[in-house]
Amino acid sequence: MTAEIIPDIVVSRLPSYLQTLNQMAKEGFYTVSSKMLADRVGVTAAQIRKDLSLFGGFGKQGTGYPIYHLIEELQKILNMDRVWKVAVVGAGDLGRALAHYQGFGLRGIEIVLIFDIDPKIIGTQVGALTVLPVDQMASEIKKMGVKIAILTVPGDVAQPTAERLVEAGVEAILNYAPVTLILPESIHVQHIDPVLHIQRLMYYLG
Amino acid sequence: MTAEIIPDIVVSRLPSYLQTLNQMAKEGFYTVSSKMLADRVGVTAAQIRKDLSLFGGFGKQGTGYPIYHLIEELQKILNMDRVWKVAVVGAGDLGRALAHYQGFGLRGIEIVLIFDIDPKIIGTQVGALTVLPVDQMASEIKKMGVKIAILTVPGDVAQPTAERLVEAGVEAILNYAPVTLILPESIHVQHIDPVLHIQRLMYYLG
Repeated sequence: MTAEIIPDIVVSRLPSYLQTLNQMAKEGFYTVSSKMLADRVGVTAAQIRKDLSLFGGFGKQGTGYPIYHLIEELQKILNMDRVWKVAVVGAGDLGRALAHYQGFGLRGIEIVLIFDIDPKIIGTQVGALTVLPVDQMASEIKKMGVKIAILTVPGDVAQPTAERLVEAGVEAILNYAPVTLILPESIHVQHIDPVLHIQRLMYYLG
Repeated sequence: MTAEIIPDIVVSRLPSYLQTLNQMAKEGFYTVSSKMLADRVGVTAAQIRKDLSLFGGFGKQGTGYPIYHLIEELQKILNMDRVWKVAVVGAGDLGRALAHYQGFGLRGIEIVLIFDIDPKIIGTQVGALTVLPVDQMASEIKKMGVKIAILTVPGDVAQPTAERLVEAGVEAILNYAPVTLILPESIHVQHIDPVLHIQRLMYYLG
């Protein structure tokens, strides 16, 4: 089972499945049918069965999936058996909001570093972290073995900053800057831009 | 050309196409081939041609697309011929960051209202806006004809808050709360959760 054989579009759905299963487990469910899961996630039951079958399938026909087993398997598939250290680059409103975000810790993600270029922001506290100057970015990221970075810098400096992150050993970037990053194919990039999501909503409201 | 006949997965790609075209126009390009656009966006050239052909196609075989014409058409398709008023619900770090976000104004989105439940936050300023109490949410949203809301409240109050937004006339919600909202099918919901994106990245780093 390698990254090559599972289409990225399938991978993109797994975290939503996991999140919905966790919510259903909290509500007291012990098993879940592909139909129930599908209705909550907003895909078809056939899609769920097809996606999960790529990983070997986790349920018997007609009896539904045992929720806790499915959660455990999805966590393994998503490499959630360890804590992932993440650096935030850009300590403006958004960077600070992300560094404070309570949703990370419970789901195996730890923000361990935060950087900025502004002398007024460097040295200030964000929760338990001190904002470090970007000059120390490469060395700190190497020292701590950070592989994932969240980029919340302005658009015009996003590309060079991302390149420096890659040189320092970062292999995956969650990009909040409003530009498309051009990086080696081996680097995994996810782009989050609220404007793109709102534009998609606008299409339907027209 | 109605929402019914264009698959949502195609709609989801249009804002990225538009953003990339705007960036290329800024760089001085006048025409763009499907291959060039595809390489920047990270899809195949065949995908671009197929997606755009659903809207009638915008280029001649072999000559590429005229960038400014394509930008204009995509803006029309995405209903960007008007300014969309948006309410932010939840004025914590993230809500404030979004209300300040410079990327909205240039792309036809105006944050016109921001709400919170915390008496310490109500009445404070976020840029030019004053944080209003959630008690005034329904009346203000109706008064201003707001159809799009951004939800940045804690997970445990997200569902009832979303229901109140829908009652007040909101038709589309950008949901930053870490829960799956259950709303009438006519309501368009986009979910942004950095954890889901990072988990997708984690899959590849395992």
